[in-house]
Amino acid sequence: MIELNHTVCAPATSVGAGAVSVVRISGPQTMAVVDRIVRFRSGTAAQAPGYSLKFGTVEGLDDVVVALYRAPHSYTGEDAAEISCHASPYIVSELLGRLAEAGCPLAEPGEFTRRAFVNGKMDLAQAEAVADVIASSTSAQHRVALNQLRGGYSAELRGLRQQLLELSLLLELELDFSEEDVEFADRSRLRALLDVAYTHCRQLADSFRVGNAIRSGVPVAIVGAPNSGKSTLLNALLRDDRAIVSDIPGTTRDTVEETCVVDGILFRFIDTAGIRAATDEVERLGIERTFRKISEAEILLGVVDITEPEAAALKAVEAMLERADLAHQKLLILANKCDKTGVNKNVNAINNFVLSTDSKMNNVELLEISAKTGFGLDQVRSYLSSHAGIASASGTLVTNARHAAALRAAADSLRAVSDGLDRGLPSDLLAEDLRAALASLGTITGAITTDEILGEIFSKFCIGK
Amino acid sequence: MIELNHTVCAPATSVGAGAVSVVRISGPQTMAVVDRIVRFRSGTAAQAPGYSLKFGTVEGLDDVVVALYRAPHSYTGEDAAEISCHASPYIVSELLGRLAEAGCPLAEPGEFTRRAFVNGKMDLAQAEAVADVIASSTSAQHRVALNQLRGGYSAELRGLRQQLLELSLLLELELDFSEEDVEFADRSRLRALLDVAYTHCRQLADSFRVGNAIRSGVPVAIVGAPNSGKSTLLNALLRDDRAIVSDIPGTTRDTVEETCVVDGILFRFIDTAGIRAATDEVERLGIERTFRKISEAEILLGVVDITEPEAAALKAVEAMLERADLAHQKLLILANKCDKTGVNKNVNAINNFVLSTDSKMNNVELLEISAKTGFGLDQVRSYLSSHAGIASASGTLVTNARHAAALRAAADSLRAVSDGLDRGLPSDLLAEDLRAALASLGTITGAITTDEILGEIFSKFCIGK
Repeated sequence: MIELNHTVCAPATSVGAGAVSVVRISGPQTMAVVDRIVRFRSGTAAQAPGYSLKFGTVEGLDDVVVALYRAPHSYTGEDAAEISCHASPYIVSELLGRLAEAGCPLAEPGEFTRRAFVNGKMDLAQAEAVADVIASSTSAQHRVALNQLRGGYSAELRGLRQQLLELSLLLELELDFSEEDVEFADRSRLRALLDVAYTHCRQLADSFRVGNAIRSGVPVAIVGAPNSGKSTLLNALLRDDRAIVSDIPGTTRDTVEETCVVDGILFRFIDTAGIRAATDEVERLGIERTFRKISEAEILLGVVDITEPEAAALKAVEAMLERADLAHQKLLILANKCDKTGVNKNVNAINNFVLSTDSKMNNVELLEISAKTGFGLDQVRSYLSSHAGIASASGTLVTNARHAAALRAAADSLRAVSDGLDRGLPSDLLAEDLRAALASLGTITGAITTDEILGEIFSKFCIGK
Repeated sequence: MIELNHTVCAPATSVGAGAVSVVRISGPQTMAVVDRIVRFRSGTAAQAPGYSLKFGTVEGLDDVVVALYRAPHSYTGEDAAEISCHASPYIVSELLGRLAEAGCPLAEPGEFTRRAFVNGKMDLAQAEAVADVIASSTSAQHRVALNQLRGGYSAELRGLRQQLLELSLLLELELDFSEEDVEFADRSRLRALLDVAYTHCRQLADSFRVGNAIRSGVPVAIVGAPNSGKSTLLNALLRDDRAIVSDIPGTTRDTVEETCVVDGILFRFIDTAGIRAATDEVERLGIERTFRKISEAEILLGVVDITEPEAAALKAVEAMLERADLAHQKLLILANKCDKTGVNKNVNAINNFVLSTDSKMNNVELLEISAKTGFGLDQVRSYLSSHAGIASASGTLVTNARHAAALRAAADSLRAVSDGLDRGLPSDLLAEDLRAALASLGTITGAITTDEILGEIFSKFCIGK
């Protein structure tokens, strides 16, 4: 539980190569704390208006600029200040030490955003979006997170909640007259409202598949026989992307999985190394796990060494067509090493072979490339971005697993109401399920919440947010 | 050559985990550029007074707070702005892109500080101190860099320069009357002034030894026989320090050499691994290089395994006494593994052995420790901090190799003037050397400088500084 009458501080910028570091202070004693550690050329923080900057000195430590905010016109909704000092870990550490001495302890992780929530500056979904906006590394991620931060998503949830409250009202009208044993409510109107609300909940819950792909990356598996050029292809795709991303000093990448941004969409490459004939049980289990991960991919890039004999090339393609779940996955067959001569015959053979199978042709395409020279890689990229199933996604996308679970729970409760209606259950039983649906929705924006949920959400934030 | 009529921008904070990133803009078009990319709730940047904050929106990208500065009251002395956005590499990158589109290209490395120098906000020594203040990781480094940034050092140099100008004046008086072949100037006064100036220059130049130790770390070598516990000792010293430093999120350490902060002083441990009987020429050269590096250490920590037979322990101590240049180096013999029983006899034997040698006893001390249990390590730390030769250093310390070279050159020129006086050289020849001394000093604060020197100094800065 945070104590709003405390004034807290934390570094707001990352410590590292840079010119400036910012230390944030928030709480009722902000101005007094600032005046205790900063000597200004003229006047005091206490006398200064909000939205003003003051130049001052922290004795023996640094010359600083202090940005002053007056409640409620700050991020947290409280009196707040941001001290800009030279970007030295030593100075920041000393500054935090002096703030602690001045009665201003270090904030908990996420405490500034939590205060903003508690003070009504944003709802819970918006607070969670702060972390998402910061973590965004592609335009698609950023667009979704910004919409959530700006409250577009919250407004939609409020609309949904409003519909459920209307349903509640209809049921309660009936309950008021229940002793007279009259089914007062217009049950056909109830049914219509219920269907709309249920569909809306399901749509939002289902959007998590795309939302999660945007947030965590569209899963792509590169499959193919050993030495067909899988690693060369992956490295070629990553290398070009790296060159772009490394323009920003200090950019860090997730080292757990290789990722790559194409046309503002994040792709996540599933490691398919190590697929070979298993010689023992342990290896067999590893290979099974890899196959399971491949089955989670949205897109398979199937690499074929086109310089192999025709029979071998066709066998490789056959294996891919078998492996791909073409009802749910897209397969792009890449005829690799097409910089070599005399490969046309094989390309034609593969094309004819694919056409002759009864696979869902819409989901299989063939491209000639050379991973080594880079020939055709631009087409691979266009394929990835146009087949990611994200460009076409419209409307609100749920990117947060907690929200998706709450929406699914709400939809389940609404289905229970619907079933109850069919079975002619009394209003008080229907009302119970409806309340459960409302409670589920309420946890998303924080209209209904507990200290425990808040603690869990904000503990994942960094200090300073 | 920077174009002061251009308006430039750069990220001022490092990109990484954090809540806020800051992008700096400076130049005459600052307000117009800001108004082009930020839509404010009310008013424009152009209308806003200096030292004010405005809350606004960068369309489709982020909500930002813009700090506005009016020339000459800014870091650069120009109109300037700092845009605070969410700390996302994506947002910062997009923001820089939009600024570029609005006619505000990316600043060169160090360009903001260079503009501050060109606009007379600071001299060259102060500008160089900006980088030092940021790089400071100990209180000693920070104190020296801050004194330089605040102009204490520059004021001292100005005083020195003033003395030389006075000397110049005396010589010129003589020159004016030289056709009359009269030695007009009071050559004894000249001599006295010259001696003061020369001594001052030399003192400053010589302070570089200590200044450099503060800035780069006091060099310490841990020597001793294999398995005496050298690595255990180093790790024990580093581990405790690490625990302190890692309090600051994102703190990075120099991975080239192991460093450790004791009582606010940085120590740098010279790698003495790999000293053993050489089996070939390559190995012999490597060992020679290591010995050369050991000879550069201020302090030697000599680790002796006290559980060894007496003869072996004494032989190890003998090797250390031979290795150490006790006229310039301090040797702390560490009787290690004293947690084991029956070691007192060996400690006494070593003590007697050291006393019996004719080594300069002031520079040799003996301590019982256990690197493994940590026993005695606090005393090792007090030894390091009290023998670093830094605590006792007073007055201005030169930490910059460029400045030290300039001061040495100035001192050499002054000695030439002095020699000339002794040999009764005419005033015009003396004046020439004096001008050379003035020119050398002038390069430090930038009173005399070239575009080439400026380019070299500021190219070492990061972008954003």
